[in-house]
Parts: sequence; C-alpha cells; structure tokens
Amino acid sequence: MNNQDTICALATPNGVGAIGVIRLSGPKSWEITEALFSKPLKGKLSHTVHFGTISNRNEELLDEVLVTLFAHEKSYTGEESVEISCHGSAFILGKIVEALIAEGARLANPGEFTQRAFLNGKLDLSQAEAVADLIASQSRSAHDIALKQLRGNFSSELRDLREKLIHFASLVELELDFAEEDVEFADRGELKALVTEVLAYIERMAASFELGNAIKNGVPVAIVGAPNTGKSTLLNQLLGENRAIVSDIAGTTRDVIEETLNIEGILFRLIDTAGIREGAEEIEALGIERSKEKINQASLVLCLADGSSPESVATVNQWVEELKVTYPSKRIVAVLNKMDIATTENATVALQISAKQGQNIDALKKWLVDAVTGDFDLANDTIVSNARHHEALINTAASLQKAKDGLETGITGDFVAMDIRQAMFYLGSITGDISTDDLLGNIFSKFCIGK
Amino acid sequence: MNNQDTICALATPNGVGAIGVIRLSGPKSWEITEALFSKPLKGKLSHTVHFGTISNRNEELLDEVLVTLFAHEKSYTGEESVEISCHGSAFILGKIVEALIAEGARLANPGEFTQRAFLNGKLDLSQAEAVADLIASQSRSAHDIALKQLRGNFSSELRDLREKLIHFASLVELELDFAEEDVEFADRGELKALVTEVLAYIERMAASFELGNAIKNGVPVAIVGAPNTGKSTLLNQLLGENRAIVSDIAGTTRDVIEETLNIEGILFRLIDTAGIREGAEEIEALGIERSKEKINQASLVLCLADGSSPESVATVNQWVEELKVTYPSKRIVAVLNKMDIATTENATVALQISAKQGQNIDALKKWLVDAVTGDFDLANDTIVSNARHHEALINTAASLQKAKDGLETGITGDFVAMDIRQAMFYLGSITGDISTDDLLGNIFSKFCIGK
Repeated sequence: MNNQDTICALATPNGVGAIGVIRLSGPKSWEITEALFSKPLKGKLSHTVHFGTISNRNEELLDEVLVTLFAHEKSYTGEESVEISCHGSAFILGKIVEALIAEGARLANPGEFTQRAFLNGKLDLSQAEAVADLIASQSRSAHDIALKQLRGNFSSELRDLREKLIHFASLVELELDFAEEDVEFADRGELKALVTEVLAYIERMAASFELGNAIKNGVPVAIVGAPNTGKSTLLNQLLGENRAIVSDIAGTTRDVIEETLNIEGILFRLIDTAGIREGAEEIEALGIERSKEKINQASLVLCLADGSSPESVATVNQWVEELKVTYPSKRIVAVLNKMDIATTENATVALQISAKQGQNIDALKKWLVDAVTGDFDLANDTIVSNARHHEALINTAASLQKAKDGLETGITGDFVAMDIRQAMFYLGSITGDISTDDLLGNIFSKFCIGK
Repeated sequence: MNNQDTICALATPNGVGAIGVIRLSGPKSWEITEALFSKPLKGKLSHTVHFGTISNRNEELLDEVLVTLFAHEKSYTGEESVEISCHGSAFILGKIVEALIAEGARLANPGEFTQRAFLNGKLDLSQAEAVADLIASQSRSAHDIALKQLRGNFSSELRDLREKLIHFASLVELELDFAEEDVEFADRGELKALVTEVLAYIERMAASFELGNAIKNGVPVAIVGAPNTGKSTLLNQLLGENRAIVSDIAGTTRDVIEETLNIEGILFRLIDTAGIREGAEEIEALGIERSKEKINQASLVLCLADGSSPESVATVNQWVEELKVTYPSKRIVAVLNKMDIATTENATVALQISAKQGQNIDALKKWLVDAVTGDFDLANDTIVSNARHHEALINTAASLQKAKDGLETGITGDFVAMDIRQAMFYLGSITGDISTDDLLGNIFSKFCIGK
C-alpha cells in the first residue's frame, strides 16, 4: 500500500441524477484538480467550494462543476482531498475520471478512501466497517447500530475493557518480576472478580450478535398453518397498515419473493409470501414438506390455527410443542386466528387474534419484536452486528475463561498473564489496534469503489 | 408558483453509493438545516463546508454529514441554498428528507431547482433546457451541443439576431410615426438585405435540427443485403475495434436489441443487430419485409452487396436507386463487400470494402459521419437539438418570410412591423424572454426531481 499516490473515484451511485460527485484523495489532489479547473486553487482554504469549469488535457470543456477542497488532516481520509460535483451524467462522470487519471490520479480500489482514513488514524477498524454497514442499512435499528459503531461507542467500550485487562495483566506481570520473593501484589479474589466481570460483559456482547445479525439482515419469519386458517389474511393485515417504510423510499430494491415488514424499526422478512399470496394453501395441504422448508429458513415461526374450529384449538399447543422439539433453535409461537367467530376457549394460548378484524395484531407484533430483542435494550445496549467482531469476542471470552480457570486452580501467574494478553490481542483486532494486511484487504475489498 | 417556500430533494441518483447529496433552496434553507445540524450555521460564509451530525426533531441521530452553504444570489438557483452530503444509503437519505420536511421544507417538484434558477435570472430558458440534455447526453457530440447551449452560446446568438430585428422594427415603426409626412427613414433595400440575412441564418439553424436531433438520440443505421453478403462480418468489424465508449461507462443502460457505435463522438444505433447476430440471414431470404422494416426505422442505410459476385456488382446501383425512390428521406449508399476476393470491377460504387480484412472501413465510417453532419461544422456551428426550439425557429422563419414578401410587394410599414414583432416573439420564446406558466410547467415537468 502506497499512500503517496492520489486516488479518485465516483462517490455517488451510478445512474442519471441531478448531480454526481467524484472524490480525490492524496498529496496531489488539489494540484491535479487545478490542472483541469478554470480557476487557481492554490492557497485556498480547506472546506471552501469553488464554481468553475473543468476541461481535459485537450482543452475539451467537460462540465461546469463545484470543487470542494479539503486540506491535509482535515478530510475524511486525513489526506489532502477534493470533491468535484458535476452534472449527474454517466458520460460526463466518465470523462472527468478519465481526465483526472490522465493528470496522474489512479482509480481507487474498493474501500480505499476508508482504508486510508483508517491508516491515517481518522477511524478505527470497527468504525470503518460501520461505514459499509451504515450505507447498507435498511431499517432504523440496523442504521442505529451502524451509526453508533461509526460514532465510536463500540470502540470506546472495547477500549475501557482493554484498559481493565491491561491493569490486570500488569499486576500479574509485576508479581512475576518479584516471583522469587513470593509476593502477591494482586489480590487473587479481586483479580478473579475483575476477570469474571469482564468475561460476563464480553459474553453478553457476543450473545448480542444473534440480534445484531438479525437486525442487519432482517429477521426471517414463517407463517405456517393448515389451509383456511387465514394465513393470507394475516399477511395482508400485517402488511396493510405497516408496509415497510424502506420500501417506500425510491431506490431500495425489494425482494420479489419476500415481503418485508418494519416494526419498531426492525425489518422482518416474511418467507414465501408469494406462496401464500397465490392461494397455494391447497397445494400446501398435499404435503408438509413446504412448511418444513419455510421453518428451516425462518428464525421466528407463527403457527396459525383456526380459533373457530374446536379441534384446532384443542391441538394447537401439542403441534407447537412438537415443532419446538424438532426445531430447538427457532422461536415458535401458537396463534389462534378467527377469534371473532370462535366458540371454544383456550386460555393457554397467549396470542388470540382476528386477522380479519385486526384484533390483537399489536400483541402479535409485540411478540415478534420481543422475540428478536430478547433481554437486550436496543436504545442503550451495544449490539454487535459484524461476524468478524463476533468471532473476536468469542475468542476473547475463551481466553478470559482460561485465565479465570487458571486463577481458580491456582496456576502460576505467567500462564494467567499469557491468557490475558491473548484476550487483549483478540479485542484489539476488532478496532484494528492489531491488524494484518490480509485482514485489511479482506475487510475493504467488500466496500464499494468510491467509499 | 410561490418562491417564498423552501424546497428540498435528493440530488444524486437513487441506489447505494458512498455518498448521497440532498439539496435545499429557498429563504429558510440555512435555518431549516441549522435546526437539525449539530453546529450553528448563522453568519457562516457562502461556499463553505461544515462537518457535523444531523438529527431529526426527536433527537434521533441520522448521520454524520457535510453541509455546504450557498448564500442568496450566489447559488445555482439564485436563492439561499444548502447541500447536505451524507452516507449514500436510501434509508438515511429518506430520513433526512423526512426531517427537513418536518422542519418546514417542501419536497421539490421535478426540475424545480432549475426552474427557480430561470425565474431568478440565473439561466435563460434554453440554458435550463440544456441542463436536462446535458445529464442525458451519451456521446461527445450530444454532450458538446448541450454544454454549449448551457454556457449560453446559443442564447447569445439569438440575442444578436433579436437585436438586429429590434433595430429593424424600430426603423419601420419610426416611419409609421411620421406616416403623414411620407418619410422613409429606413432604406427599403437595406431592410430587405437585413431581413434576408437574418432569415437565412434562422433557416440554417432550423435545418441543423435534423443533425442535432440525430446526435441527441443516436443515428439509426440499417445494414441490409442479400444473405451471405457479409452483414454480420461488417457488424463485427464495426463494433470490434470501436465499441461505443459510453457503454464502457458503468451505469449507461444499453439497448438489448441494438448495438451502438461511437464514431467521432457521434452515436450510431445499428438496427436489428440481434437479427444479424443470430444468423437470421436465411430467414431474411424468405421475404424482404424484414429489410423494409429496418429501412423504415433507419436514417442511414448501408446496402451491402457481394463484390465477389459479378451479378451483385452489376445490379447494386440499380437496387440502391430503386430504394432511393421508395425512401426519398433516407440517406442510402451502396457498399461492395468482399473486395479482397473480387474479380469484377465497378468504379461507380464509391464504397468498396472487405469487412473480413478490415479494408476501407474508415471510408465507410467517414461516409456515416458525413451523412449525419452534412455541411454543418460540429465544432463551430450552432446545432439545434431541441424540438421546441426547432418549432420556434420554423415559426420565426415563416414570420420573417412574410416580412420579406411584404417588403418586396411594397406592403405598408405597419404590416411589416407586425411580422417582425411576431418573429421576435417566437425568438424570445426560445430563451424565455417570453414565456407562459403552461410552457414552463411543460418544460420543467420533464426534469428529474432534484434538478
């Protein structure tokens, strides 16, 4: 990686729009832009905008543009940077990038702007990863998690934990220096309490990944049930008034097979709604294979039974219990529908609704949200949504567990210190305090060009 | 139209990108932005950029953004304006627009920013129209025409012509004031010379529309000929080395049925290349219906004959002459192919090529370019590419013709003056000196939102 060169790329989405923005970063950003621009830029202040025209080396006028200047250390990347805002035509954007390259800029690799920001200390690694998550976020919860991470909340928590561990490790290591004198600087009970506390914290963070991942990718929900239990009515009731906000925003691509539902900022993906919509209930009656497939793809399963049929009401709990045994990792719930025309009662079923009349739909939605969030508080808890972070936290926890076990079995201080150092290594890999070129390459190659 | 309100819209294309830009224009742009932004903006200079966070009314943090300020009269629209550059996620962009609207901004109508620029005198109407053309341009020629028009070249030519007509009209009208004294201030010969000159100029401008329109939309070309004359070889030869530059730029959508070819910055659309590519020549032999259809869609027709077949060589001219009679408005040319293995000669056919060997392909391309440009000089002549302007020029010419006829038949000055005023009205409608709400609505409704 050579940070001495100047990179450029289109930063706005492809396609026709009112404006498009091209970014440059590197020591020659201003100089290269000035060579093509109609006005001198040298000596101008950082964070100022200049209107003029841009032409290529052959003096062909390309466009009227706004050039925004960012000085060294004052930009996103930490390097001298420029943003060129031109008319949003693919032809013009292509021509300007071409002209910049002819002046000595190089087309940026995917994520290279953010990678430079990381290497120049403007962002740590988990913040850099949050940039990609933020761009991809499609619901309020996913957005909030990514934005908190970008703002450094997660990083500062990790830093606090690391400092506790450093304190711990230094105490243990001090002991080692005085090993012959058989001194114990660190109170073993205190040490154990500290490692237990940190371990519990890390384990909770790691556990939040299930929620974070569900929020990031949407939570797959299956609605299963016999024919005529009202699956498609329930689907319409859920979608009708609450059609996912994101799908109203132009440009969000929607899955053709799945419908999405946004409840309290969490995106739920309703599996195989095409099947339900097309009135495939008759076909479904022929075999339960289809239901099995749906349940396999889902995290949450709504088992819909006909509340107006005494037989259904009587057997629904048994059905759900059987499913829970077959699918122990899924959250499965019984839902009695058609309660507006029900004649029998079954107080053991918590969710009793009428999809047609809209009765108790809020309770059903609350169940969905609670099933996802569990005992986490989306507003205040740190939620981990990145698989790499999750893995690092699992490894951290394992090392801490070894240290804790060591303390309990009275192992010598040097082994305990080693485990603690190992835990710190894993924690540090999340923020990039410890990183390798391979790791960086792997992370930034998943970014889009221009970021 | 109420320019007292503040409008906002997404200015960059829909979709996921590194950054997205939202625009505001109107008297409360700064105030509305400041209400959501983490830093004070009041008193800041125009053309400065500010980094901070943006939150909605409920204090929900939406994103880290760059806010660019433009003062009244110093912006694109001529009004106080703001550009908010945020992470390029549809979710975030939607949320920010929502928050701006909650603070009192209104979602802009299509083209409303440019319409305001026009109403505030920052652009004339033909320049405003050039903005849309510039964004849509897919080839260098189309781009150059639009950019020249945006830069005001066309407008200033029209202004010159109008001034000549104003001078002319005032002379004639001065005469009318002194009608009883039977004075002739304006030398009739001079008047006639002037009107003839302006008329010729306008007529040439109007005539350039055929070229301008072809360049704007691409020039449809048909390659026709009997089976085995080498149509698909010629197609590959043309496309092989010269595949349209625009199609290399990401985001340019390409027509699935047509191939495009960019020669000297002009976009040619090769009609029904799918048919040629799929080796449909056999089918084509069954009927000439298909060829007829192709020719009907084309502006330029290449009639390909087998130069190695004495019969083809002998009959090609007659074939082309017959086509010219049937299709008088098309430019049709005979092309003898397979000249690398030809045995007979026919010096009357100008284009003798070998598609296989690449012989004389440059001459063929030159014919295509010349057939489009005619006697216009793309670099220096004003080319009209807008149908509305063309219509106005035709009307101007008709009025001038009436004035000229009047002068020749010795009609009274007041009639001549009326015709000249009429011509000036039509000319003025191009730049918007004369405009109606209907006209403006019609023009700007074709713009995208955000422009």
